[in-house]
Amino acid sequence: MAIIDVTVIPIGTDTPSVSRYVADIQRILANWAEEGKITYELTPMSTLIEGELPALLEVVQEMHESPFKNGIERVATNIRIDDRRDRNNHSMKNKLASVKQQLMKLEP
Amino acid sequence: MAIIDVTVIPIGTDTPSVSRYVADIQRILANWAEEGKITYELTPMSTLIEGELPALLEVVQEMHESPFKNGIERVATNIRIDDRRDRNNHSMKNKLASVKQQLMKLEP
Amino acid sequence: MAIIDVTVIPIGTDTPSVSRYVADIQRILANWAEEGKITYELTPMSTLIEGELPALLEVVQEMHESPFKNGIERVATNIRIDDRRDRNNHSMKNKLASVKQQLMKLEP
Amino acid sequence: MAIIDVTVIPIGTDTPSVSRYVADIQRILANWAEEGKITYELTPMSTLIEGELPALLEVVQEMHESPFKNGIERVATNIRIDDRRDRNNHSMKNKLASVKQQLMKLEP
Repeated sequence: MAIIDVTVIPIGTDTPSVSRYVADIQRILANWAEEGKITYELTPMSTLIEGELPALLEVVQEMHESPFKNGIERVATNIRIDDRRDRNNHSMKNKLASVKQQLMKLEP
Repeated sequence: MAIIDVTVIPIGTDTPSVSRYVADIQRILANWAEEGKITYELTPMSTLIEGELPALLEVVQEMHESPFKNGIERVATNIRIDDRRDRNNHSMKNKLASVKQQLMKLEP
Repeated sequence: MAIIDVTVIPIGTDTPSVSRYVADIQRILANWAEEGKITYELTPMSTLIEGELPALLEVVQEMHESPFKNGIERVATNIRIDDRRDRNNHSMKNKLASVKQQLMKLEP
Repeated sequence: MAIIDVTVIPIGTDTPSVSRYVADIQRILANWAEEGKITYELTPMSTLIEGELPALLEVVQEMHESPFKNGIERVATNIRIDDRRDRNNHSMKNKLASVKQQLMKLEP
């Protein structure tokens, strides 16, 4: 399983507000999640998605298409992929747990 | 106030595990937060930090230095800045609230 | 046509030097370019690739797989997509030309 | 010396064209380069800048401010930092040279 972190920025909107486009993308993700293909989480800065890499790249393409369907003519999408294969428990939950464990070790 | 989203990747570690370096960076952030200069949040993919932009860039520099202090000789840091000045309530909390409001509007 | 900007970072190499992995990826790109599906350019910080978006995402997946084939167990890939559809001449060459034209306009 | 790779995206422009903002930023960089503090290069996807890290972060802040001075109210800036300290010849030129050397080694 891989984890990706995605931002989709519509360029050429008349206002600085883009929450409407973010909301459209969240509904796309809800559909994928309902089918059990991904899990996802909205943060204040991006969307984090967990799943098999080929599925994740399909999801990215659908997210990136979304503002074009609403009349936007330019989209800047940014993706970070974190893919770890030496363990089979690489997940959003376990990554946070590892850092917390390290933090406890370090406390005096 | 601006919001930044930061990843710090140490290159040339002997294992794929980097949680130890992430934990060191969290302690740097805890110090800045205690002084009231930033608020921050660890996600499974990065750290989100809210504050005045000049302070945020100082924080980034300190985060980026951290692995070097532990013997690492190359660091790849990635930063996304989101800075909005038409309102004075641009914050992590309000960004999430805006998307949720949009999602409710869209429900039938 | 879209343009993407890709970095592939192998994590858990014994040295800070990763040029060997970058070279492997350049040969993958040379194959795609020979088949006429993309054009690409190596910069000191990343690889820029121009083509149809679905092909570009296939290329990204192959680039991202490459270090795993050489024994690396964790890979961090970063992608920026710039996709503009109000003109049919969106290309690496034309983007640079637009900025140069603006720079000349601005000279006194 | 470190190398950074920067994109500055103005949000809420009336058209998808942003070359005017990119040109303004190039003139900021020309000033810094004239003073001998950085060297830089415009690519079709971003601007690459080489220099000491504290100077680079000052430059980033000035680049990021630029669209606000032209009436834009939201800016999304993306920065990749590559900082290597086991050699004192880490530069844009040498990074490309290393990859080319690897490519020649690999040819039959």
